[in-house]
Amino acid sequence: MDFKVSDIAKFLNGEIVGDENIRISNVSKIEEGKPGTLAFLANLKYENYLYSTKASVVLINKTFVPKEIVNATLIKVDDAYQAFASLLDLYVQAKSLLKTGIEQPSYIDSSAFVGEDIYVGAFAYVGKNAKIGNNTKLYPQVYIGDDVTVGNDCIIYSGAKIYSDCVIGNRCIIHSGAVIGSDGFGFAPLENGNYKKIAQIGNAVLEDDVEIGANTTIDCGTMDSTIIRKGSKIDNLVQVGHNCEVGENNVIAALSGLAGSSKVGKNCKFGGQVGLAGHLTIGDNVFIGAQSGVAKSVSSNQIILGSPAIDIKDAIRAITVYKNLPKLRDEVIQLQKEIKSLKELKLNSEN
Amino acid sequence: MDFKVSDIAKFLNGEIVGDENIRISNVSKIEEGKPGTLAFLANLKYENYLYSTKASVVLINKTFVPKEIVNATLIKVDDAYQAFASLLDLYVQAKSLLKTGIEQPSYIDSSAFVGEDIYVGAFAYVGKNAKIGNNTKLYPQVYIGDDVTVGNDCIIYSGAKIYSDCVIGNRCIIHSGAVIGSDGFGFAPLENGNYKKIAQIGNAVLEDDVEIGANTTIDCGTMDSTIIRKGSKIDNLVQVGHNCEVGENNVIAALSGLAGSSKVGKNCKFGGQVGLAGHLTIGDNVFIGAQSGVAKSVSSNQIILGSPAIDIKDAIRAITVYKNLPKLRDEVIQLQKEIKSLKELKLNSEN
Amino acid sequence: MDFKVSDIAKFLNGEIVGDENIRISNVSKIEEGKPGTLAFLANLKYENYLYSTKASVVLINKTFVPKEIVNATLIKVDDAYQAFASLLDLYVQAKSLLKTGIEQPSYIDSSAFVGEDIYVGAFAYVGKNAKIGNNTKLYPQVYIGDDVTVGNDCIIYSGAKIYSDCVIGNRCIIHSGAVIGSDGFGFAPLENGNYKKIAQIGNAVLEDDVEIGANTTIDCGTMDSTIIRKGSKIDNLVQVGHNCEVGENNVIAALSGLAGSSKVGKNCKFGGQVGLAGHLTIGDNVFIGAQSGVAKSVSSNQIILGSPAIDIKDAIRAITVYKNLPKLRDEVIQLQKEIKSLKELKLNSEN
Repeated sequence: MDFKVSDIAKFLNGEIVGDENIRISNVSKIEEGKPGTLAFLANLKYENYLYSTKASVVLINKTFVPKEIVNATLIKVDDAYQAFASLLDLYVQAKSLLKTGIEQPSYIDSSAFVGEDIYVGAFAYVGKNAKIGNNTKLYPQVYIGDDVTVGNDCIIYSGAKIYSDCVIGNRCIIHSGAVIGSDGFGFAPLENGNYKKIAQIGNAVLEDDVEIGANTTIDCGTMDSTIIRKGSKIDNLVQVGHNCEVGENNVIAALSGLAGSSKVGKNCKFGGQVGLAGHLTIGDNVFIGAQSGVAKSVSSNQIILGSPAIDIKDAIRAITVYKNLPKLRDEVIQLQKEIKSLKELKLNSEN
Repeated sequence: MDFKVSDIAKFLNGEIVGDENIRISNVSKIEEGKPGTLAFLANLKYENYLYSTKASVVLINKTFVPKEIVNATLIKVDDAYQAFASLLDLYVQAKSLLKTGIEQPSYIDSSAFVGEDIYVGAFAYVGKNAKIGNNTKLYPQVYIGDDVTVGNDCIIYSGAKIYSDCVIGNRCIIHSGAVIGSDGFGFAPLENGNYKKIAQIGNAVLEDDVEIGANTTIDCGTMDSTIIRKGSKIDNLVQVGHNCEVGENNVIAALSGLAGSSKVGKNCKFGGQVGLAGHLTIGDNVFIGAQSGVAKSVSSNQIILGSPAIDIKDAIRAITVYKNLPKLRDEVIQLQKEIKSLKELKLNSEN
Repeated sequence: MDFKVSDIAKFLNGEIVGDENIRISNVSKIEEGKPGTLAFLANLKYENYLYSTKASVVLINKTFVPKEIVNATLIKVDDAYQAFASLLDLYVQAKSLLKTGIEQPSYIDSSAFVGEDIYVGAFAYVGKNAKIGNNTKLYPQVYIGDDVTVGNDCIIYSGAKIYSDCVIGNRCIIHSGAVIGSDGFGFAPLENGNYKKIAQIGNAVLEDDVEIGANTTIDCGTMDSTIIRKGSKIDNLVQVGHNCEVGENNVIAALSGLAGSSKVGKNCKFGGQVGLAGHLTIGDNVFIGAQSGVAKSVSSNQIILGSPAIDIKDAIRAITVYKNLPKLRDEVIQLQKEIKSLKELKLNSEN
């Protein structure tokens, strides 16, 4: 795609300083700017790059006054970072609008309901009685099981799979390979050592504005629902076990795992590779450091770290000592020697 | 689906107390019961809910005598929990029976053999000389490579992929996105720092009654087979490396990884995010706690924890001290001071 | 497939000792040899198996002189292991040659360019303006987004997904379920606790000779590229975050995760389940032990272990003390008692 600088300035309600007729076809970082691209300067730490950048256009704050000659065309706006972010959004939306219509071959069961202005890529599958909302995009090879409901304005990328009966809210984004609603991991041990599968007949529910990363798996509830509440963002390769409830606006980083039936409050953050045991309750605003293993429930507003996870200040103190454990042990050995010699001295002085 | 209470009672060989004509369309927990659903009471801890539940029907043990008036229709059975579980199984089977026939477009190579009463979803692929047993279900977008054998009564969910030459037993369940038989991770370092791929020409074998979770990966053997023995259950996002042998009736939780050539005995349990180094031998009935890292072989009947994993009792004792390491260090510093002053006193008293 | 021993000897430039007319259809390990298979003897530790193996043909070094009677037909070559490896390569290549042509139904956009001698499996998808090089194989259900470039001689296995704008070099192998170019995990917190998605408009670039494991995910850069440099091999279920740069000839084992914007040098090795924090710089020839958590940048030629990762020698020393922490604590308690009694003795002697 290709944009005129005057159109961009108009969209941003900005003022052009320099060549109005320049066209740009991409964006760049100011320190790596290339001709034909647009960059931005918000953090003055990067000011020097403004005078040397090869980017054709740079967004700057209205209040900023350059100290040297600038070769790039400038667009002066209220907030350069926000303006840049809104350009990226516009670009993504424009690209997204190109995906529309129903490619063939695809499979939409005759009992399914599909809304207006949807995109269905080739080899996508929509099962019996499924409902797909307006403006929703199902990329190629997506699987929507029977009786699934998907809201409006969702994007489900190539090869994501949604098991039957699941419910997806509005404006959700589900990345390639994510699996929503697979069977929970429930087996009853028999006397002979074999396991009997416990039927998993619940579903998974994603509320509005949820984003699920590539190859992440969200199991269905055993009888009820596994729930991801609105606004939560889950990274790639995360496992959410059956009957979990992830509250609003959680951010869960890659390779984390939540065992079954745990409930997480609002506005929590999980670092990467965190593990949460089953049947826990995590409060609101809890931050869990990367690679932590959480074995107990956690009240609100805690920051925890470690395996098992403890208060982050205690964890950091313990780590500091841990790294020097051999020294500590040597000191104890030294103390033992000194005490021994003190005792011998004592003994000698008594004789 | 919708069931008459009299049909349910007949199937369970139970006795109805209350309205025989009620119909139910779903199940619920007794504490969250809704009209039109069936719940059960097995654990007397939940007895109070029996008198207030909104569930229309409740399964109870024959020996149980209510202390108050019950609004729900009761079905008295020998074992309420078992009866409930068998109803769930029946429900799943009934739903499963609806999946039958070969949807189009799908791709079944002319040299492939498919059994009776199978389901092949749209966009599923069955390669050359592959054999699919009776009553097996291949959901949409499943991939079955050349020369693969799949037994009877299997369910392979949407988008699972089975590489060529693999062998799947009877009654196996493979969830969406699982990959069976991908190349083992084997590379020979060359003198110039590059790596040369070592050809991986073995396969992966799942024996009967194995269940593989969503997005789990089982690599093929380098020359022989990677084997998952009968009855083993593997959760989501687990990695099983080339030439591993997982014995009968193992339960391996999510995000665990087994490096190449390790052998695990029977009836072991792995918590989530466990890592097993390569070329280890793990005995029977070994339990490995979540996030453990196992670097050495383990004999039978051990319970281990930690990274590196040690006997669980030792691990818990070490963790207890670990959490208080700063206090321990402070105590050592205090001891050093006291010894120093004792020595000085000694020295003074000698002068 | 089925080969004559004389053809194999000719290909290997080897000398036959025994029956020239034997045919083999598979390979085996010498200790598990079966009739109709070919094995090799390189490590003399296995010499005894040579005299008892049931393999029909065994490759041996020219310099090797058997001490007992050998039943198998021998092929004498310069280097038995190398000869065996090249046979495996030949076998894989021969099998691979069978995959050719464009199966139907598949979807190749009219604006896409596809090279010569390619294989496109059924239900594979090639988007607008995508370019697929010569001799490249797209297995069934592969997804190639718009404007993607794939080089020559690549193999992309069933169900791998490549988002739009990504670039794949020559001779790359991408396993089933891998996702290349999914959105980076970037969200700006708003005052009300919600998160606003930061548009991710960059791409992912794999240079030549890269191998990506099953269900691994490589996110796109926010504006620029996430880069995997030539010769790097990434195992299954690995997460590479946005804007990362993985240098040449890295080997990254399963279930590892690299947070955003980290840069890794050349010829590094990551064990399984390693976690790398964001915005780090890792030098060349760095080895990171399994389950390590790397929170700081690492200079070249380090071997590190632990969470947080430290020099491996220090880590092993700390682990040794850690396992005996309860004993160390008991020793400190004992010292406290002894000091107390020494002080009391002192006090008594002064009175």
